[in-house]
Amino acid sequence: MIIQSQEISLKHLLTVESLTDEEVMGLIRRAAQFKNGARSILNKPQYFVANLFFENSTRTHKSFEVAEKKLGLEVIEFDASTSSVQKGETLYDTILTMSALGVDAVVIRHSAENYYHELVESKSIQCSIINGGDGSGQHPSQCLLDLMTIYEEFGYFDGLKVAIVGDITHSRVAKSNMQLLKRLGAQIYFSGPKEWYDSAFEVYGHYLPLDELVSKVDVMMMLRVQHERHHEVGKTNFSKEEYHQTYGLTEQRAKQMKPSAIIMHPAPVNRDVELADSLVEGMQSRIVQQMTNGVYMRMAILEAVLNGKA
Amino acid sequence: MIIQSQEISLKHLLTVESLTDEEVMGLIRRAAQFKNGARSILNKPQYFVANLFFENSTRTHKSFEVAEKKLGLEVIEFDASTSSVQKGETLYDTILTMSALGVDAVVIRHSAENYYHELVESKSIQCSIINGGDGSGQHPSQCLLDLMTIYEEFGYFDGLKVAIVGDITHSRVAKSNMQLLKRLGAQIYFSGPKEWYDSAFEVYGHYLPLDELVSKVDVMMMLRVQHERHHEVGKTNFSKEEYHQTYGLTEQRAKQMKPSAIIMHPAPVNRDVELADSLVEGMQSRIVQQMTNGVYMRMAILEAVLNGKA
Amino acid sequence: MIIQSQEISLKHLLTVESLTDEEVMGLIRRAAQFKNGARSILNKPQYFVANLFFENSTRTHKSFEVAEKKLGLEVIEFDASTSSVQKGETLYDTILTMSALGVDAVVIRHSAENYYHELVESKSIQCSIINGGDGSGQHPSQCLLDLMTIYEEFGYFDGLKVAIVGDITHSRVAKSNMQLLKRLGAQIYFSGPKEWYDSAFEVYGHYLPLDELVSKVDVMMMLRVQHERHHEVGKTNFSKEEYHQTYGLTEQRAKQMKPSAIIMHPAPVNRDVELADSLVEGMQSRIVQQMTNGVYMRMAILEAVLNGKA
Repeated sequence: MIIQSQEISLKHLLTVESLTDEEVMGLIRRAAQFKNGARSILNKPQYFVANLFFENSTRTHKSFEVAEKKLGLEVIEFDASTSSVQKGETLYDTILTMSALGVDAVVIRHSAENYYHELVESKSIQCSIINGGDGSGQHPSQCLLDLMTIYEEFGYFDGLKVAIVGDITHSRVAKSNMQLLKRLGAQIYFSGPKEWYDSAFEVYGHYLPLDELVSKVDVMMMLRVQHERHHEVGKTNFSKEEYHQTYGLTEQRAKQMKPSAIIMHPAPVNRDVELADSLVEGMQSRIVQQMTNGVYMRMAILEAVLNGKA
Repeated sequence: MIIQSQEISLKHLLTVESLTDEEVMGLIRRAAQFKNGARSILNKPQYFVANLFFENSTRTHKSFEVAEKKLGLEVIEFDASTSSVQKGETLYDTILTMSALGVDAVVIRHSAENYYHELVESKSIQCSIINGGDGSGQHPSQCLLDLMTIYEEFGYFDGLKVAIVGDITHSRVAKSNMQLLKRLGAQIYFSGPKEWYDSAFEVYGHYLPLDELVSKVDVMMMLRVQHERHHEVGKTNFSKEEYHQTYGLTEQRAKQMKPSAIIMHPAPVNRDVELADSLVEGMQSRIVQQMTNGVYMRMAILEAVLNGKA
Repeated sequence: MIIQSQEISLKHLLTVESLTDEEVMGLIRRAAQFKNGARSILNKPQYFVANLFFENSTRTHKSFEVAEKKLGLEVIEFDASTSSVQKGETLYDTILTMSALGVDAVVIRHSAENYYHELVESKSIQCSIINGGDGSGQHPSQCLLDLMTIYEEFGYFDGLKVAIVGDITHSRVAKSNMQLLKRLGAQIYFSGPKEWYDSAFEVYGHYLPLDELVSKVDVMMMLRVQHERHHEVGKTNFSKEEYHQTYGLTEQRAKQMKPSAIIMHPAPVNRDVELADSLVEGMQSRIVQQMTNGVYMRMAILEAVLNGKA
């Protein structure tokens, strides 16, 4: 079945806040069509997309790559460690090069928050920018695949009770999700270590102790303890076992969940830390589906951005 | 000329012992067809294969990649050094991710012997596993391309005299080859340093001094001195020159070979160690053909595994 | 519009001196055709090209990769750091492997000057070699894209005044360019630090102080200060600011340029060293076009080399 590509058209995808509700729902619907076998009809026979991951990644990187190949795009992989970045070339000049080589869109993950500002303001750079994660900033494609997974499960957002648990301060996923879910009508709860919580989150939802929250919500969104970002703020003070018992979804706590509730995690999971090992591939987990949906959501994003160039 | 894809269908390819004689001969015939220009007819228009090489490799890695592209498959390259493996993600969770992203088959080289057990037992992992080498364990695709090269040369295995010479204990190729060649009727001889020989090999063949053996056999299969694995067991006690003179195929020894006999080596060759430099690309060497045949054998393996998914 | 592939046919591309004037002009014309949308008609349905960059590169590497994909070639990327080079495999044996795997052409960048001699003399290696830069030797594809950019601008070489400014001794681009431009009738001038100038260049042109030269020439070809090569000869003695003021194209000096003159640089540019930051993307700069033209020139080169195999 061939379905005409939808009307969604984006110049870049930098943050989720910049998307309208219609665009969010349009992307979710389009991703679901791709999941059901729809094919994309792009305007040009050949598009080039470059993946520039300056931070380690398996899921996001390979998910974009599979999405690009499913769309029939030409994929250019960029490895900073063997590039002119080693000669001191800046991100700006690297992307200017990609643009000059005829690359239509770039997917970038970079440790610098808001790295994209100077790129989108440049008159010389013609590439569309898709943000694959900026520092502790945003991670829009992860947010959208999370929403797709929730919508696929429940069919609505309004009044849905979603818990976001764990290392919220360092999570780019958490920030995107709380904003968008709130806007779409969901009710947000937070839990986890108080030192990883910020009063700025109060506008989106309320902090509750984990044991109070677990029986109440439809979605348990567990966040990864990001050991790789904690060197900035001193070592984590919890042992794995302590974290698991105090802030993790133990087997015991999982039994308190509603039967219809689902478990989500952006992965990679620290098994037996955020989540008991046995729950990761369990009946209520949607962690594998999140990864699968990620491919289809990224197809929708890429299509929308390439439509924006026509 | 388009030839219908053969009936061989495999769920995984982990070891050669698990293959029947019919499967081995079927793969050899299919690889020969590919070498003669046959094209594959696969069931689906798009398959994804990921190559995960956790150990350094040129030949095996690039040979699989060429084979995949000759079959028209979508290839996902995985680089552990820029992946979430750096955040502590396990092999299991990496392959679970590949599976969730829709990857049909993965080619894995890993230093851990039998790394594949937990992968094939998982209910969540849907990928077929093709073993590209596990520690000092097995290397089935290398074994099969060796058999293909021998069969291409002689047209039979029964009664063929094959010498396996060198670092047998550390060689995953040697172990696969001795088992399969014996099963197919060949007569096996061993030579090389006694400290790299094991009495467990006696069931497959007998140890002979190199000078006694060289004039007798049809195939001189020289093994690579694997400096990279010897750190485990203390440094090699031979100088290069000593090794070459005592256990290597010198120009002098090569003159004792039957005119119809061939020289094989899995490569990379340590020139003037296992083999005199001048012999590597000489008339009796089949080392270049082994590499060429490797592409066609891997096409046959990939096709059989993808057939197994239909 | 489909245009029959031109008659240019090369066995290898190692240096620019080995090209006739007709071949140079033929490649420039063919590249211009590709830029205008011409498609290549190659003899075989599937060609394999491998990119082996043993030195860091963004532009040249990714430019070849885009060119290969625009031509519909199968691209094999080689990463020395995860290859058997780590086990001590030589360049010769690596390329012999590529040849055995059926790779039709290899693009190589390597730090050893004239690395290609032993490769093209081998009877076992069947691959065509495209030199992507050898040490401080040659960089033929960069030279050709520079010529294309100049020809696109002016439509002739005869009598054109071209300045080559900066680190001439270490620049493989400069040496290729001075030879070919001189042969095609251009008048060459040199400037930059005297310690980076060599009397051997006198046969191609003359050294002039920068301020004398800047108002005179049609092309200001600024060379990169190659910090990465200077460890061999002791640290550079200039601060960035000193270099810029003394040998760089400052905003002030740029005002002395003819209105029709253009600025070129092989990039990556050290902004505010060789060139004022504001000039890089300015009206007279052709630096972005050089990168764009590089893709089309490399298409022409690849086509000529693959034609040479038919």
